[in-house]
Amino acid sequence: MGNQFTVHYRLHCAPGEDPMQKARGIALEQTVELPADCLRPDIADTWVGQIQSLEEQAPRQWNCAIAYDSRLAGEELSQLLNTLFGNISLKSGIVVDAVDWPHSLLECFGGPRHGIEGLRQMTGVPAGKPMTCTALKPVGYSAEELAALAYAFALGGVDIIKDDHGIANQPTAPYLERLHACQQAVERANRETGGSSRYFPNVTAPHHLLKRRLDAAADAGCEGALISPWLTGLDSLRWARDHSGLAMMAHPALTGGQMGETHGLSPALLLGELFRLAGADASIYPNTGGRFGFTEDQCHAINRALREPLGGLKPSAPTPGGGMDAERAPYWIERYGPDTIILIGGSLYAQGDITAASGNLLKALGR
Amino acid sequence: MGNQFTVHYRLHCAPGEDPMQKARGIALEQTVELPADCLRPDIADTWVGQIQSLEEQAPRQWNCAIAYDSRLAGEELSQLLNTLFGNISLKSGIVVDAVDWPHSLLECFGGPRHGIEGLRQMTGVPAGKPMTCTALKPVGYSAEELAALAYAFALGGVDIIKDDHGIANQPTAPYLERLHACQQAVERANRETGGSSRYFPNVTAPHHLLKRRLDAAADAGCEGALISPWLTGLDSLRWARDHSGLAMMAHPALTGGQMGETHGLSPALLLGELFRLAGADASIYPNTGGRFGFTEDQCHAINRALREPLGGLKPSAPTPGGGMDAERAPYWIERYGPDTIILIGGSLYAQGDITAASGNLLKALGR
Repeated sequence: MGNQFTVHYRLHCAPGEDPMQKARGIALEQTVELPADCLRPDIADTWVGQIQSLEEQAPRQWNCAIAYDSRLAGEELSQLLNTLFGNISLKSGIVVDAVDWPHSLLECFGGPRHGIEGLRQMTGVPAGKPMTCTALKPVGYSAEELAALAYAFALGGVDIIKDDHGIANQPTAPYLERLHACQQAVERANRETGGSSRYFPNVTAPHHLLKRRLDAAADAGCEGALISPWLTGLDSLRWARDHSGLAMMAHPALTGGQMGETHGLSPALLLGELFRLAGADASIYPNTGGRFGFTEDQCHAINRALREPLGGLKPSAPTPGGGMDAERAPYWIERYGPDTIILIGGSLYAQGDITAASGNLLKALGR
Repeated sequence: MGNQFTVHYRLHCAPGEDPMQKARGIALEQTVELPADCLRPDIADTWVGQIQSLEEQAPRQWNCAIAYDSRLAGEELSQLLNTLFGNISLKSGIVVDAVDWPHSLLECFGGPRHGIEGLRQMTGVPAGKPMTCTALKPVGYSAEELAALAYAFALGGVDIIKDDHGIANQPTAPYLERLHACQQAVERANRETGGSSRYFPNVTAPHHLLKRRLDAAADAGCEGALISPWLTGLDSLRWARDHSGLAMMAHPALTGGQMGETHGLSPALLLGELFRLAGADASIYPNTGGRFGFTEDQCHAINRALREPLGGLKPSAPTPGGGMDAERAPYWIERYGPDTIILIGGSLYAQGDITAASGNLLKALGR
């Protein structure tokens, strides 16, 4: 019997649906994909998921734990995702809530290269103080216009100035042109202020262009990059970490449909553990009370998944964003703790003077 | 004003939620990600989505069409996905139902290389007759054991014998070993029967291994491969098409959470048009009445999205599967038409004599 990993599910049963049958269905579906009576005993005993527990939590809602042979994941993130939610994504009433990771899988996938400490060194923000982040936008601006914004944010002291995740390689500000313009703008501001603002370009790209964008970012002097792992495939984040050495900030684009209340992956698993496992030094998520719908409890759960001990993995920086008001930043740092990156976009833009707005944000955060 | 593409949404409004405000939110969120009053008029006019129509369909359910500048997608599938459902995936009550594609985007992404006709030539199945497909499983079998199954299916005349999508690179049957064993087994059966069965190995892989697996498959003499685009990232399918020349069969693993009834991408858009656009010569989907939950209408809609005229794109083969009974295959071909690949796994295994079961399936289908 090999190493195992246990997956914790929340099952939402339809009227008349038997929870044990639902659990057995998952154990077969995510492994052998054959009915039990088609299986040789050695296969059934080793490879079919083993139901560890099944407990009613509420009417028609059951908690279930199933253990799988770690070899199922084949040491590949693509196959790990498949094992977690591949075929059962096409069923209903199954939430993959949490995973007990064996050290073998944690070591295999590796986690953040820099982690929170690395980001602090990069930006010069001491322990006990939060880091700040903003986004360059809107799409349609030229590279020079975006660079002018980057310069203004850097003058104001924002630590991480990233491309908006929707700014890719549109003809108005092609990647290479924007990369150089924004990186130079931030470097110029740093020389003037003595600060350490960092520009993270969006390297989310088609399969064959990811390497080129990462290499160009490193060559231009960037120390980090933004990537949307659900657009590129989760393993592209892992590969980008290994290939480039850049700090990786992960964006949750396209993940939302995968985190339904009664069917999906839990936000803490997806935006927390999976992104951390794949190498995200920081993971952006929509803060509660903004334009999106997470509860504060879900946000705390994501924070824990990113920061709490997990084998030898470095902690990753929770990066709440999504329509947060700059005035509320100190409140959220009090709630979430200083090992958090506060991501504020629109609310700084809305103030008109971006440098002043950024400076005020830092002051309010005790920076 | 550039070329535009129009996205059709189904909006499910919560009590008290204003549909026009929801539509405006989408038009901003998927483009500039800034409040309207932060925008220069030239940006607002060109880049913010333009609401074309908003019509009540049912209580609190509205149909909405929004037109976007085609340059938003930046000629990249990763960014196209982001434009379709990136940030709004994190909201609720939004179904992306359909897209009116401009020729520029269709040409840019290209669609199937082989299409239904190419698959027919490859397998020698004449027009008017359905193709058949099965899956090698379960995980845990050795390469030799899987190859023995491949041989038995090929003797029975199954046209496409693919790896189960959950068989990746597990140590019990590592990719390269399995590839050669199964390909040789199918070639041997073809020599004995005079048939043209084809083995499609599963090339779903981590970012850096996709090329190696595709190249190995082509070198081994395979003419097609299986890929799960939601595990690898959708653009990996496009890249695999361009790089390898192999026929690509797409598997829906992990897509399920993204196709909710009141929030997500419609099955016809995701498993139909998007997979076709990205190069799937065949798209597997869970047939109604099997282990998964699509309605027959949804299946017909996927079929249309794969086969109906779409710019210059070749038609792609609908491949219903997922627990279908072999005896029902003729019924489904009658419903779906002969330009369909019938995917049957468990029901052939359950019959014990795989070659006989496969032969009976073909006979029942008039082959």
